[in-house]
Formats: sequence, C-alpha cells, structure tokens
Amino acid sequence: MNEYVVRPIGFVTSPRVLIEDDNWGEVTSTIHIDASVLEPDALLGLETFSHVEVIYLFDQIDPEDALTGSRHPRGNKNWPKVGVLAQRAKFRVNRIGLTTCKLLKVGADFIEVSGLDAIDGTPILDIKPYMKEFGPRGEVKEPYWVSELMHEYW
Amino acid sequence: MNEYVVRPIGFVTSPRVLIEDDNWGEVTSTIHIDASVLEPDALLGLETFSHVEVIYLFDQIDPEDALTGSRHPRGNKNWPKVGVLAQRAKFRVNRIGLTTCKLLKVGADFIEVSGLDAIDGTPILDIKPYMKEFGPRGEVKEPYWVSELMHEYW
Repeated sequence: MNEYVVRPIGFVTSPRVLIEDDNWGEVTSTIHIDASVLEPDALLGLETFSHVEVIYLFDQIDPEDALTGSRHPRGNKNWPKVGVLAQRAKFRVNRIGLTTCKLLKVGADFIEVSGLDAIDGTPILDIKPYMKEFGPRGEVKEPYWVSELMHEYW
Repeated sequence: MNEYVVRPIGFVTSPRVLIEDDNWGEVTSTIHIDASVLEPDALLGLETFSHVEVIYLFDQIDPEDALTGSRHPRGNKNWPKVGVLAQRAKFRVNRIGLTTCKLLKVGADFIEVSGLDAIDGTPILDIKPYMKEFGPRGEVKEPYWVSELMHEYW
C-alpha cells in the first residue's frame, strides 16, 4: 500500500490543554489557517453555514500506540469489547479525529467554533461545511453503550 | 508546520470507476480492510451501528491541482464563488473525502456500504461509527446553492 503525506492547513488554539474525555460542548476554540497553505479567500462564504466538520490529527498520540484490534471503550468493562473501527477512540491508525462543530465566527484567517474536542495546538487537516444532505440517510441505529459513553461528552 | 504520513487501512471496490459528480445514493461498495494494518477484530461490533463515516483519499487528484482559494462550486456561475473550505470539492489540500454511508454488511475483513461517493480503488484512511451524538448540535443552516448542487447527488 502507498503512503501519503498530509500537512496541516492550520492549528487549534483552545483553553483545553489536557487530553480529557468529557465536557467539550461549551469549549470555544479558534482554528488559525496557515497562510502558507491556503489563500485568504479559502474561507469565503463559510459564514453562510451554521456548522463545519473539522478533520484533525491526534498528534499527541504515539502512532505506535494505535489500537489495531478491539478493546472496551474507555477500558470500561461494563461496555462490550468492540473493534477500533466501531469506536471513535483517539488511539487509531492515522490518528484522524472528526467532529462537527458549531461555527461561531469567520475571520480573515481564522474561524471560531464551539464543541471542538481537540486540545490546544492540534493540527487541522481539513474543514468542510456541514451540509444536511451529507448527514446520514435513513434511520440511525447505534448500540446502548454509546449514549452512556457520550452522557457528559458535550 | 510538520508533515504527517498516513497509510490506507484498506481500499474500495465500487462499480463506479469514473470521477463523476452525481447519482451516488444507490451505489453499493465494498471496503476491504488491509490485514497488514488492522487485525480481524478491528470490525468487532460495528454491525450494531446503522451508519459509518468513511474518511478516504482522493488519490486520483494531483496534489498540485488543489484549490487553495475560491471558485464557483462545480464551476457553475449561477452559484456564488466560495472558498475551498466552504465547499466539499475534491480538489483540496490533503485530498481528504468524508462521507456518511449506510452500513449494509460487516464481513470478516470487509464492510459493504451504500452511498459511498468514492471510485473503485480509492484508499480508505479511517472508518468511524456514526453516532447521533456526533451529529450537528443546534439548528443547521446552509446556503441555497447547496440543495441545488446536491439535487441529484444521491
């Protein structure tokens, strides 16, 4: 298989500096766009959307620590052991994080968002406008443990 | 800025071999998991979810062609000129695609999905279970041109 190189289009400043699981909902973060990668008009029109999908890199995770099989989410044995592709754990191959955030402000070379679960300094790989049409088509089903795990996430 | 190396966790087989904009909704694709990257139990429990978020790489796009500023989506002048971060065009820095797909089947080393807008052979960077809790929080707003653009996408 080929390998591919990605480079950040920007980085996060966030009041959150520790890797912790919960209470991300009220966090306001700024994503600074790297002017050596994108031109100023890369953000043009983004303010007409209410939400963005932020794709980022868990750069503080050692790639060697990536889970390649299964585990109990958060190590909690009350929940079933599930594969890394059946959970959103940060210890994953390629270390890619993905979160839909509320867009608060679009500046000349930055955006402000709420609910970004990435710590201060996190590299950003992409930002996409959230389009309703790209949401799940058809009824969504998920196992019981998800709502327990997500109880205090936001 | 640092650069990072990513490697596919698998690849797509799809009846669609041409890069075309529309009619992806009824497409059934298979994502084959690379056994040299992930263990068989990486998919354990995924069948308890109805949808997955598939993160893939537009590997047929020349990185040199990435849009770094703005353009009319699909080059259509009836729609406003918007920045690359305000559209989901494939010609983007890092060439990362992201689509929420319906999960049809989970096999030993593959999954079958519908609505994956990636052509045959596309490298897969990550698969995450779709969790309702990770959907947009608060009311979603998007500009008028999105529904026109997405009219025949699925």
